[in-house]
Amino acid sequence: MSKDVTNLTLLCDYYEYTMANGYVEAGLSDRIVYFDMFFRNVPDNGGFAIMAGLEQIVERIENMRFDESDIEFFRSKGTFGEKFLDYLRGFRFTGDVYAVPEGTPIFPGEPIVTVRAPAAQAQMLETLLLLTLNHQCLIATKANRIVRAADGRGVMEFGSRRAQGSEAAILGARAAYIGGCVGTACTISDKVYGIPASGTMAHSWVQMFDTEYDAFVEYCRLYPTNAVLLVDTYNALESGVPNAIRAFKDTGITKGGIRLDSGDLAFLTRKAREMLDAAGLKDIRIVASNSLDEFIIRDLIDQGACIDAFGVGDRLITSHSSPVFGGVYKLAAVEDGEGRIIPKIKISNNTAKITTPGFKKVYRLFDRDGKAIADQICLADETVDPSVPLTLFDPQAPWKKKTVSGFIAKELQVQVFKGGRRVYDSPSLPEIRRYCEEQIGTLWDEVKRFVNPQEYYVDLSQRLWQLKQDMLNNRAGPGD
Amino acid sequence: MSKDVTNLTLLCDYYEYTMANGYVEAGLSDRIVYFDMFFRNVPDNGGFAIMAGLEQIVERIENMRFDESDIEFFRSKGTFGEKFLDYLRGFRFTGDVYAVPEGTPIFPGEPIVTVRAPAAQAQMLETLLLLTLNHQCLIATKANRIVRAADGRGVMEFGSRRAQGSEAAILGARAAYIGGCVGTACTISDKVYGIPASGTMAHSWVQMFDTEYDAFVEYCRLYPTNAVLLVDTYNALESGVPNAIRAFKDTGITKGGIRLDSGDLAFLTRKAREMLDAAGLKDIRIVASNSLDEFIIRDLIDQGACIDAFGVGDRLITSHSSPVFGGVYKLAAVEDGEGRIIPKIKISNNTAKITTPGFKKVYRLFDRDGKAIADQICLADETVDPSVPLTLFDPQAPWKKKTVSGFIAKELQVQVFKGGRRVYDSPSLPEIRRYCEEQIGTLWDEVKRFVNPQEYYVDLSQRLWQLKQDMLNNRAGPGD
Repeated sequence: MSKDVTNLTLLCDYYEYTMANGYVEAGLSDRIVYFDMFFRNVPDNGGFAIMAGLEQIVERIENMRFDESDIEFFRSKGTFGEKFLDYLRGFRFTGDVYAVPEGTPIFPGEPIVTVRAPAAQAQMLETLLLLTLNHQCLIATKANRIVRAADGRGVMEFGSRRAQGSEAAILGARAAYIGGCVGTACTISDKVYGIPASGTMAHSWVQMFDTEYDAFVEYCRLYPTNAVLLVDTYNALESGVPNAIRAFKDTGITKGGIRLDSGDLAFLTRKAREMLDAAGLKDIRIVASNSLDEFIIRDLIDQGACIDAFGVGDRLITSHSSPVFGGVYKLAAVEDGEGRIIPKIKISNNTAKITTPGFKKVYRLFDRDGKAIADQICLADETVDPSVPLTLFDPQAPWKKKTVSGFIAKELQVQVFKGGRRVYDSPSLPEIRRYCEEQIGTLWDEVKRFVNPQEYYVDLSQRLWQLKQDMLNNRAGPGD
Repeated sequence: MSKDVTNLTLLCDYYEYTMANGYVEAGLSDRIVYFDMFFRNVPDNGGFAIMAGLEQIVERIENMRFDESDIEFFRSKGTFGEKFLDYLRGFRFTGDVYAVPEGTPIFPGEPIVTVRAPAAQAQMLETLLLLTLNHQCLIATKANRIVRAADGRGVMEFGSRRAQGSEAAILGARAAYIGGCVGTACTISDKVYGIPASGTMAHSWVQMFDTEYDAFVEYCRLYPTNAVLLVDTYNALESGVPNAIRAFKDTGITKGGIRLDSGDLAFLTRKAREMLDAAGLKDIRIVASNSLDEFIIRDLIDQGACIDAFGVGDRLITSHSSPVFGGVYKLAAVEDGEGRIIPKIKISNNTAKITTPGFKKVYRLFDRDGKAIADQICLADETVDPSVPLTLFDPQAPWKKKTVSGFIAKELQVQVFKGGRRVYDSPSLPEIRRYCEEQIGTLWDEVKRFVNPQEYYVDLSQRLWQLKQDMLNNRAGPGD
């Protein structure tokens, strides 16, 4: 970030402060509230998304502080009371946060984060929480689609130069790694997060030498164990591949690679493979890049392209075909003076924007083979008892019922903050990446289709469904 | 950014370092090279883009440094020589940079930045330069489309929560402001860059009170000069607008606003306008938000929606319909031992990826009415003499000629670094914003169409065109 933006506390929508100031003035700032973060649609109309970004959320909440220059900034606006400025001066987060661990497959409508905190605090978390998770969930989800399309071939994240800002590059590489990429081109993501960075040469390297052959030989001498030669600076099949073969032969390299970054990758890689094989270079791998995504990769593989690894750039790092993860953060309940939880609902004119009220938790139900059957959203004081058959029903169509038994129920959210104290240690990134792969393995193939996947069931418990119906039938009560 | 990522020097593709290490080893690191940044397509297939992000580029180049932990990181990789690590230890940028000022309309194929520097340095700028400009040019261009669609009504940038990371939010607000937005919801962008932030209430404010009316009255009392009431928490026309009217009346407010964030905005705003007018509240403005972009805004206006200002979120801050600005950075020339400039070309299998060789500059030609006629890319030692008629021709179809005279020629790039020293002071953001509006005023309406705009002419000088043809006819010489 430029200038000295090291404290992101003010990365917050302005209305959070006008509201928080109002809560302070109205004596509501310490009223305990419950907010849920959830999302409404999976990017690319996919069957599931992947949770990512929690580690950054935890750090950012821990670091929320207002310094004197922030206070002065608010004072200069002329609309914030001194009481509020005092409140900011002593600010630290004192609430509870529950969240789904990184790498978990997540589905529309279920709370992936729940915040229980004094109203003004809960409000001031909104923007940073949403943007951090919206970004990383988006990229982890997209990366996973691309990795699945590559069907076992390595996918490198190559997109920094087209990322939407520096954090999009740095944390985008992190999210892509969680989603299954084997590494990144982004050096700082390796240094800071340990995501394996690699990269060999650009066209400029080739152009810097008198001949393409000279450029290749020099590179092979410098990096005999990891020479990946970019063969399309002039003409891939007529010049690049023959020069690469000559350079590998002349330097005695048998393990290395060539990279193609333009042209028809199915045709060129098949031809290049033939030429390499004919030269006895069977262990020279072929890396392909150039505006790839899950669909192009699948087509290339279907057409017999001879590609051992993919470098994927802008279409991954921006989730080009679906560049927004629409997570929202909505008030679900408030506590009254006696600590009773009063559920809250937002109705609005778009039915898709109706919220599910109450303090909630989510169970994921697995069958005996370990496959995920459904998620069930309950009120926080409910428990799912696996020894009792459970009737699931579609909350949009409650006559569609299914009774399950002999399942295993696992709570999805873990507690991350308790009374403002962090009570959660993030697993290492390789652990998160492994967990992600394993959890995706619990989903049915039907849910994993790229196009028109089967909708995974996210149901409400009977009590929660009834509560929501009652509040809808009362037409928002307080609003009328 | 998380952890302590305050130095972005390593936000750099790994291959820049493998190449730079190679240049050091091969004795090429101090060879002077010329790189151009240019882009190939305007986002959304628009007629022009807007330059933005130069101020951050300048800061970032000035701050490029490798500290001991960076050196140690490279050493741990085992493939970088000590000579290179020494080189990094003393690194500072010593080259020249020329760039198009922020706010300028820019077109495909023309160099918007030109770097003349020792090879290893020029290489290490690539990623940071591209990502910074690609991001801000993208958002400024998109914002400007939306602002033009709004046709004089204010557009607020509201997208932080859906931005791709924190810098995308913070600098995205800056770029949106350059593109013509009147302000942002992002508080930190106001504090750091002075972009006017504003915002009033979310649905949660309304839900925090016993009744919607109570919530509105409390807000009106707190902010009597800037009360914008969100009227769609429960039911906009049956509850929200009537409660807002009652609250305005009861608190004596005649200047303020209501905001609608869901439902059919054309219908709801017309109805709301009628209700406000019938209540004598003609100076209560209507603000609309909810997944808006230039096309929806234009349709709403065409359908008689009564909207005074727009809040635009994810579709602006991610440039949703076209989320990548494809700027590239390509070697154009190298100097030989005697300081002679040797042009370089990249040919490749995709003709769209062929580069224009040589050290170049760009002129924009204006007619007597101040309208931009064409841009002409020349070799750096050429000058355009406005007193002599100039024959322009399409570089793709050189028989299509046009002779112009009596024009004004303006060089587009300014020098930003000279021998590593910054020689450019960025104008203030309001100045950049004004300049942008004024420069867009020099474009013909045909170029400004949202769909299928007239292509603006970007021509090559006769000498440059001939040079490129000769190099193409020689089929890349060095590669064969």
